Amino acid sequence: MAGNSLGKEFVVTTFGESHGKIIGVLIDGCPAGLSLLEEDFQEDLDQRIPAQTIIVSARVEKDTANILSGMFNGKTTGAPIVVTVDNKDIKSDDYVQIKDLPRPGHSDYSARVRYGGFNDYRGGGRFSGRVTVALVLAGTIAKKLLRHYNIDVLAYTKAIGKIKSEKRFSVVEICKNRNVAATRCPDLVCAKKMEEAIVAAKNAGDSIGGIIECIALNVPVGVGNPLFDALDADLAKALFGVSAVKGVEFGAGFGVAEMFGSQNNDAFTVNNEEKVETVTDNAGGILGGISSGMPIIMRVAIKPTPSISREQKTVNLLTMENATLNVGGRHDPCIVPKAVPVIEAVVAITLVDHLTRIGYIPKVFEERQ
Amino acid sequence: MAGNSLGKEFVVTTFGESHGKIIGVLIDGCPAGLSLLEEDFQEDLDQRIPAQTIIVSARVEKDTANILSGMFNGKTTGAPIVVTVDNKDIKSDDYVQIKDLPRPGHSDYSARVRYGGFNDYRGGGRFSGRVTVALVLAGTIAKKLLRHYNIDVLAYTKAIGKIKSEKRFSVVEICKNRNVAATRCPDLVCAKKMEEAIVAAKNAGDSIGGIIECIALNVPVGVGNPLFDALDADLAKALFGVSAVKGVEFGAGFGVAEMFGSQNNDAFTVNNEEKVETVTDNAGGILGGISSGMPIIMRVAIKPTPSISREQKTVNLLTMENATLNVGGRHDPCIVPKAVPVIEAVVAITLVDHLTRIGYIPKVFEERQ
Amino acid sequence: MAGNSLGKEFVVTTFGESHGKIIGVLIDGCPAGLSLLEEDFQEDLDQRIPAQTIIVSARVEKDTANILSGMFNGKTTGAPIVVTVDNKDIKSDDYVQIKDLPRPGHSDYSARVRYGGFNDYRGGGRFSGRVTVALVLAGTIAKKLLRHYNIDVLAYTKAIGKIKSEKRFSVVEICKNRNVAATRCPDLVCAKKMEEAIVAAKNAGDSIGGIIECIALNVPVGVGNPLFDALDADLAKALFGVSAVKGVEFGAGFGVAEMFGSQNNDAFTVNNEEKVETVTDNAGGILGGISSGMPIIMRVAIKPTPSISREQKTVNLLTMENATLNVGGRHDPCIVPKAVPVIEAVVAITLVDHLTRIGYIPKVFEERQ
Amino acid sequence: MAGNSLGKEFVVTTFGESHGKIIGVLIDGCPAGLSLLEEDFQEDLDQRIPAQTIIVSARVEKDTANILSGMFNGKTTGAPIVVTVDNKDIKSDDYVQIKDLPRPGHSDYSARVRYGGFNDYRGGGRFSGRVTVALVLAGTIAKKLLRHYNIDVLAYTKAIGKIKSEKRFSVVEICKNRNVAATRCPDLVCAKKMEEAIVAAKNAGDSIGGIIECIALNVPVGVGNPLFDALDADLAKALFGVSAVKGVEFGAGFGVAEMFGSQNNDAFTVNNEEKVETVTDNAGGILGGISSGMPIIMRVAIKPTPSISREQKTVNLLTMENATLNVGGRHDPCIVPKAVPVIEAVVAITLVDHLTRIGYIPKVFEERQ
Repeated sequence: MAGNSLGKEFVVTTFGESHGKIIGVLIDGCPAGLSLLEEDFQEDLDQRIPAQTIIVSARVEKDTANILSGMFNGKTTGAPIVVTVDNKDIKSDDYVQIKDLPRPGHSDYSARVRYGGFNDYRGGGRFSGRVTVALVLAGTIAKKLLRHYNIDVLAYTKAIGKIKSEKRFSVVEICKNRNVAATRCPDLVCAKKMEEAIVAAKNAGDSIGGIIECIALNVPVGVGNPLFDALDADLAKALFGVSAVKGVEFGAGFGVAEMFGSQNNDAFTVNNEEKVETVTDNAGGILGGISSGMPIIMRVAIKPTPSISREQKTVNLLTMENATLNVGGRHDPCIVPKAVPVIEAVVAITLVDHLTRIGYIPKVFEERQ
Repeated sequence: MAGNSLGKEFVVTTFGESHGKIIGVLIDGCPAGLSLLEEDFQEDLDQRIPAQTIIVSARVEKDTANILSGMFNGKTTGAPIVVTVDNKDIKSDDYVQIKDLPRPGHSDYSARVRYGGFNDYRGGGRFSGRVTVALVLAGTIAKKLLRHYNIDVLAYTKAIGKIKSEKRFSVVEICKNRNVAATRCPDLVCAKKMEEAIVAAKNAGDSIGGIIECIALNVPVGVGNPLFDALDADLAKALFGVSAVKGVEFGAGFGVAEMFGSQNNDAFTVNNEEKVETVTDNAGGILGGISSGMPIIMRVAIKPTPSISREQKTVNLLTMENATLNVGGRHDPCIVPKAVPVIEAVVAITLVDHLTRIGYIPKVFEERQ
Repeated sequence: MAGNSLGKEFVVTTFGESHGKIIGVLIDGCPAGLSLLEEDFQEDLDQRIPAQTIIVSARVEKDTANILSGMFNGKTTGAPIVVTVDNKDIKSDDYVQIKDLPRPGHSDYSARVRYGGFNDYRGGGRFSGRVTVALVLAGTIAKKLLRHYNIDVLAYTKAIGKIKSEKRFSVVEICKNRNVAATRCPDLVCAKKMEEAIVAAKNAGDSIGGIIECIALNVPVGVGNPLFDALDADLAKALFGVSAVKGVEFGAGFGVAEMFGSQNNDAFTVNNEEKVETVTDNAGGILGGISSGMPIIMRVAIKPTPSISREQKTVNLLTMENATLNVGGRHDPCIVPKAVPVIEAVVAITLVDHLTRIGYIPKVFEERQ
Repeated sequence: MAGNSLGKEFVVTTFGESHGKIIGVLIDGCPAGLSLLEEDFQEDLDQRIPAQTIIVSARVEKDTANILSGMFNGKTTGAPIVVTVDNKDIKSDDYVQIKDLPRPGHSDYSARVRYGGFNDYRGGGRFSGRVTVALVLAGTIAKKLLRHYNIDVLAYTKAIGKIKSEKRFSVVEICKNRNVAATRCPDLVCAKKMEEAIVAAKNAGDSIGGIIECIALNVPVGVGNPLFDALDADLAKALFGVSAVKGVEFGAGFGVAEMFGSQNNDAFTVNNEEKVETVTDNAGGILGGISSGMPIIMRVAIKPTPSISREQKTVNLLTMENATLNVGGRHDPCIVPKAVPVIEAVVAITLVDHLTRIGYIPKVFEERQ
């Protein structure tokens, strides 16, 4: 595969650029027989646009999904599914200057070298956060499949800047509260402070980072492989594919470095349903690359949006002289809330791929009524 | 690929079990024309066995490499290279009880479900740390290739338990000092304290975790891809393939969550050699999944060895009753130092794969004299 | 990969169904910097519709290409390229009966079992010859790339039924004559007889098969691999991907079975340009899976169109009783001429993939002026 | 994958050279729980050495298999299986001259260019027929798996030179007779004539080609995919991976070119067991890339061994002058009989891969008693 595909048996390939005609996704390996409507994508697409527009970019695109192939009589056929959203509300003029003045923290310079200057630099092109819409589209299908197996994937904001919620949320809390707050934090007291931190950053012409936590519930025991196709390895690959992510950890994560084995080891026990479970979940539901049956817990660090209103130092690549840059265009002071459905999507995609590889999800799908 | 291979053009596949005949690696895609001797592997193999045996497992195997294929007249031919080390000094009796009493923190239970009980459980089998010898073998070849392009990959211990070195090391310091201390920390003051912490854990019948940092120097600009085959995504996948790793971060890593864009963005500047560089390296040398030409910096969290001498709670999988376990066998109180060459290896392997994909490393190799 | 992709570094994935919205192709791995216009696809698209409508299906679709992604300022960017053609002129009613009465020689029954009855059976859906339009689209791009390296891929009709041209054509003859005749045979005397044979089959309510020959000129020495990624193996895989193909041979092909080594071995000689060539080309330009520098010559057997007007015996899959079938709809009495650009396309795609894997075609493309 | 692997879920990678230490195979994706002994490989290994040594190379190696990994308590574990055979009886001196004088019909010249002269040319190295031992090893495992599903793969000699058996053999005849004759032809009258033809070629210092037919019985309906991962496409790729193969056809094969649709279409009918079958099998058991449930029938053209005793014309690659070559070493006048188990092996491997991809063969294997 040449670099724009993820997965082995449930293969997701994205295409499209920020200022091109469309953003799209091709899914090869989706089982036949899954009911799917264009409306099914709307909730996830809308998730990318938090309600309070005060904290988001002025560029608001109401995206709607178009299914181009792979469907017949309202069900998937087993053939490749292509879903696209149109790009609208594009002001490409804003981006002309970045052609030669690479934006600090962005991929402009790296991409220019990589593609010999032929890359579409408008709005970041293929490197724009806009491209994550394709992931969200595939995520909708993946989550719909997982729900048939009672598997849920839930992401939410854990921290914005120095505001961090230390609560462990119940599933009910996450579902009930995370969409109440535009910051997607189920701890509504924290959520309010997070919003204030974002507004403060925005008013300072700046941006701010954060942490997203994601849990996957009811993943069966025995999913994944030792070594290279470890479930955590593949989840991490998918998560780092979201370009704002700078760190990924599972369970106790970086905390394990300070722990003793006697603290970190999760004792096994037989639960009320006569099943094996662990008393704690420092492993984050994955041991030796294989799921343990406990909740899979992961956290990702999201960097502050590189596009800020302040003047920044850069280089003019034509003259090879130092220069200053004032980025125009419309920017989110914080992309963490917008990234929540994206994180959820790549986790769900990876789980479906692994469950398909071991035949847990079959090639022809029998929907539960 | 069925799960035991890493890479697309420089493909590393491992095989062998802890208590089987051999541990081995098959490398497909190594360029023709690289000089290679069986002795070349020795330094890295020896790295896995820190000098002061006080802090390591009593099972000491002096490994030596056997090249079975892919060589002719002292040079690689372009055909698949197979390298193995023999397993010696095996006491399988130590492991009989874990068949039905899964060790907390180990993959015993997950693996049993995954493989229907057919997996070789002796010493953890395919899940043993012993299997990382195969990675080290491939790493030797990868590092030898990289050195022809002046690219160096250097890993070292950053923290053991709560003992953490906050120094930024120069390359000279790393090379000079990291092998002085059995803990592989170039900060020799810290290294001493780390050793004490390990001995304390050992004496308490316990184990302890830590952090390894790895830098890759002189990686050219423009290596990697946006999204799924991002350089950081592939590095993370390789790093999480080492099963003790519970967290991976690049550059400022989880620190970005608390930063503002104006702090995190690395300003571009023209350096003395008329080249573009960044003033800081919060990005860890990777922007938008593509290398920026700056040092690639990553850190991994290594969990404390799950095998400890203390009694632990587990489940008897035959009777499905709670049970207690006293793990016999020989255990490292801390695997961090031993993991240093492994981390170095998987990073080098991933870099060679990416450099091969873009043709930077050609299929036929012209060695510099 | 899940089954709808071809290639490793120049990866072609097709999507769309005969009676769906579109037929499309996604190309991942096309080098950046190639000039490309939507008009560039027209000549190949038109090739699929031979001029004399007497010998083709009454369903005539003038296809035009839409580029959805991967282009900027008239050049490829290195990002995935998606090209589609719309489906028009669709009469789905014609196909209702085949839902339960599988057409002999078609994939209706196999596909129904494979996809649990969820496949889009209209017009053969994903199995329709219409889907080969996607291959032709990718072939246009592949041939455009190859032309920059002076590599030409030329296919033409060699036989229709028992009418076979035994001539060896010069490149000039192929280029000059093959489009003169609707049958795409450069031997114009034979071409006339072929047309008569097709008309005779049509008038008899029947269809007829044939042979297509394809040559690839100026492929450099040293392309391909021993064993599994042999150049001939990958070409054969691509050719058998065209579902009407029932046989593939290279050079002397099945003729080698009756030859002695002394006849079949192609003697090496030094030519006027001081280069190594072979006196004969029984090997068809490939030895040990690797190109020899001589023309690559291959032939494929194309079966007669399974859709015929005559009554045929089949099975009613609902009642599981024997039944008779009169296929409605519009059918070509001979698909051989229509398959010529498809064969050319899959050969060109495979060559570009192999040339990209060895770095002969770089990731960033420098166009010759 | 870098070129020496075949398959997606049952992945076979070969290694080793003709005059190196070993020939070996790594199988990744074999289900856990299959009983396997080193003795199991012997029958297939012996198949490569026809009884009457008169018609084979004087180099007779009695190969025996060594299992290095992936086994525990006599069963496969699900981990990678490595099996090797040692190379013995090697006279490398015979091959020194071919370094600069490429043998006509061999890959010497192509390989030299491909690998920059670093390839092991002794005995053809990686291009030697000896390497097919690795395929036979993997084939033994694949056939053992298939037998649990009542699927049989049977290959036999169909033609040697102009001696061709036109009989359609019953399974009983094939099993009973093909090993009686050293030529592996179940038609014992023909087999005798074939042997005479081989001896005649040998006496004339020449070699001779032939045709092998292979049938796969009881493959279930619905295996394979449309387009690129078509079952016939993947079988053809595997078959052309055997480097002496110059043509592959299914069912009526090249015969379809001269047929009418009304002749070629296989009528469906309901059989005595209330199952769908076809009256004829011109399709060779595959329609639209997917198995139809009928026997899969394929034929391959095997070229005459390029190594012959006669003087041949070649080029001295050092001086770039025309030269003559008298090949020393030991050669088979006909490799067709020796190739029979190889063809059987690659077909079995491909079937297991496809059956694994759709979950028909599960990851954990329940052996029938």
